[in-house]
Amino acid sequence: MTLLVQKYGGTSVGSLERIHDVASKVLNYKNKGHDVVVVVSAMSGETNRLVELAKGISSDPSERELDVLLSTGEQVTIALLTMALQNLGCKSRSYTGAQVHILTDDAHNKARILDIDGARVKRDLSEGYIVVVAGFQGVDQQGNITTLGRGGSDTTAVALAAALKAEECQIFTDVDGVYTTDPRVVPEARRLDRVTFEEMLEMASLGSKVLQIRAVEFAGKYNVPLRVLSSFEEGEGTLITYEERGMEQALISGIAFNRDEAKLTIQGVPDQPGVAHRILGPIGDANVEVDMIIQNVGADGTTDFTCTVHRNDYDKALAILQDTAKELGAREVSGDNKIVKVSLVGVGMRSHAGIASTMFKALADEGINIRMISTSEIKVSVVVDEKYLELAVRALHVAFGLDEEPDNAGKTKY
Amino acid sequence: MTLLVQKYGGTSVGSLERIHDVASKVLNYKNKGHDVVVVVSAMSGETNRLVELAKGISSDPSERELDVLLSTGEQVTIALLTMALQNLGCKSRSYTGAQVHILTDDAHNKARILDIDGARVKRDLSEGYIVVVAGFQGVDQQGNITTLGRGGSDTTAVALAAALKAEECQIFTDVDGVYTTDPRVVPEARRLDRVTFEEMLEMASLGSKVLQIRAVEFAGKYNVPLRVLSSFEEGEGTLITYEERGMEQALISGIAFNRDEAKLTIQGVPDQPGVAHRILGPIGDANVEVDMIIQNVGADGTTDFTCTVHRNDYDKALAILQDTAKELGAREVSGDNKIVKVSLVGVGMRSHAGIASTMFKALADEGINIRMISTSEIKVSVVVDEKYLELAVRALHVAFGLDEEPDNAGKTKY
Repeated sequence: MTLLVQKYGGTSVGSLERIHDVASKVLNYKNKGHDVVVVVSAMSGETNRLVELAKGISSDPSERELDVLLSTGEQVTIALLTMALQNLGCKSRSYTGAQVHILTDDAHNKARILDIDGARVKRDLSEGYIVVVAGFQGVDQQGNITTLGRGGSDTTAVALAAALKAEECQIFTDVDGVYTTDPRVVPEARRLDRVTFEEMLEMASLGSKVLQIRAVEFAGKYNVPLRVLSSFEEGEGTLITYEERGMEQALISGIAFNRDEAKLTIQGVPDQPGVAHRILGPIGDANVEVDMIIQNVGADGTTDFTCTVHRNDYDKALAILQDTAKELGAREVSGDNKIVKVSLVGVGMRSHAGIASTMFKALADEGINIRMISTSEIKVSVVVDEKYLELAVRALHVAFGLDEEPDNAGKTKY
Repeated sequence: MTLLVQKYGGTSVGSLERIHDVASKVLNYKNKGHDVVVVVSAMSGETNRLVELAKGISSDPSERELDVLLSTGEQVTIALLTMALQNLGCKSRSYTGAQVHILTDDAHNKARILDIDGARVKRDLSEGYIVVVAGFQGVDQQGNITTLGRGGSDTTAVALAAALKAEECQIFTDVDGVYTTDPRVVPEARRLDRVTFEEMLEMASLGSKVLQIRAVEFAGKYNVPLRVLSSFEEGEGTLITYEERGMEQALISGIAFNRDEAKLTIQGVPDQPGVAHRILGPIGDANVEVDMIIQNVGADGTTDFTCTVHRNDYDKALAILQDTAKELGAREVSGDNKIVKVSLVGVGMRSHAGIASTMFKALADEGINIRMISTSEIKVSVVVDEKYLELAVRALHVAFGLDEEPDNAGKTKY
């Protein structure tokens, strides 16, 4: 008898018919001998409907009241799913975030979970109930309703799994797992049976929308095994674990990419201490998030400075940088918003040299010019012209053998 | 500085525009120097929408989960009204039933309020907040969400007024007060400035849909002055008080009527002890509510027995009574579902004779035959043929001078 915490997102509970389907799915797990706690989101479209109501009242609704409003979305779903489970003959009970004491800080609309009192859920489980909990919501120390921000239901599920010491936290979504890369770009992309938390974090931050980054961080912190599965198809999905595989293998998990990048360069900046801060400070003050940062030594005691930002922030960042360039007496500001970032991700890189050079060679063989390079412990990212995105991803997918069946360790050698 | 608890029903908050109107209205009271606690219902149509969702899941949804579902309706309204108040520059906070500890028994869908902890509301009021509370809902001892049944928001408002020792509980609705009779029948009907709780109870149970009977009972029990006003027009409405007026006046408050009556008679029943129970028992067992009951001595040691039921229950009750008649050896069962009940209501009757005979004479003068008579301390009811309803109400309205301006005591002499 193992305990599973399962999370079904807005699309999975998007209609009464789908709620019935989720109930059947949950019952199957229960019938296989598992205890099940289910976390659900608002029915798809519902949160937007509520936000529109709020906008009809005020252009700047208070965050506290917005949380009171939005939290009704999940409350509707827990009641309906519980009714559907009872309709199948299950014992089931629903709980709001407040009712199972999902204690958060008081940062309305983006609260963080501090604690969960699992006593009531455990008692229900021991009496044979399937417990259905509203995702995305909690209460602060004063009993005010809070929400965790969009996608927060993943975090609720992970936090509940941690509090209840669940065997696994299963995130049911509209994809059937984590892939070596986007199957729309590389049809040969393979579903990974396993991936580490660190790899998942790199993949998620690079644009794989499968899981909320916060939920993955949370799972890693509390060692909660996390599995991504499809709501609509059968399958084992992808298990995200905190265990690393054997060190004898150089392991690449996948290739992530991000189409929304733009790059900005300021050239001929006098090379003095504090110059990086004087360049990045005004950009940060304008709430523009900077991704990659590279500084090279230029000629004549000057330096060249390049960074990437989200494409939507390109014009804003360019204007700021031009002001900064004048102040600093820099030579020139240039930019390019037709670039993309492609990244190789894998914990195996830590102990294996040669991965970066294999990557660069594969790109060179296709005539793809690398515009920027940035590396971390488990990732190598390159910036290339937008037009090369698909070619680069496909070339790397082949170069690292990601389309081949994995070996016994569940991972591909290269 | 007085404290008002105001309740706005579903029609009053039925659209975003109306919610803005309610906010303005509430702010007016605040600006006049009152502390205000506002209780709101779900936006009109919302509760039905939620019930339909539940029916889409299960033909027999559990009462506990139905309460989880339905309580979201009021939660949406409190958030929106609070935003609207904040938009007008007010300090305002919303609370669900659970958040202000509206403790109820565990009778889901029809719970009764046991206790309210007003501490949090009082603290907010002392800090200048307008407090907005979800009507219709509470929590039981175990923290399960409960609802008070349809119209329960009136009860929430009264209970809060009692707990906070409010100066007045004001029920805003789509009529501007309690009338001497239905203005659709008697255009000269006058709005009453005051009416007693007992009179209001008789009026309400006789078909005036202005207030929930439970709310009136609750207000009477805790001596909460209750006022009915219009959400849409200015005016003083009708104050419902527990104070009786001077005993020197014979006071009639109004004329109530009920179109949904049907009458059943069983004749020639052997007059033995226990016969009333043998007749009414099977009817009660079939969940048919009996209103008036009359037993007359008949000829030959037999008795005649007549009762009235809701017109919808007529066929069912008739069939039951025919079975009973056979068992008891009664002579005949007859019935009539084209009858109505007209009632004169007023606390003054207690100390004044002659009211009933004035009533009977007024009806006789119009040639209206009285089929049944029933009296209570503050009411005289007659059953007449359906076709006479309007004529009877108008004749009585004139006979008791209800269309005349009240005297100084705020009531009409006759």
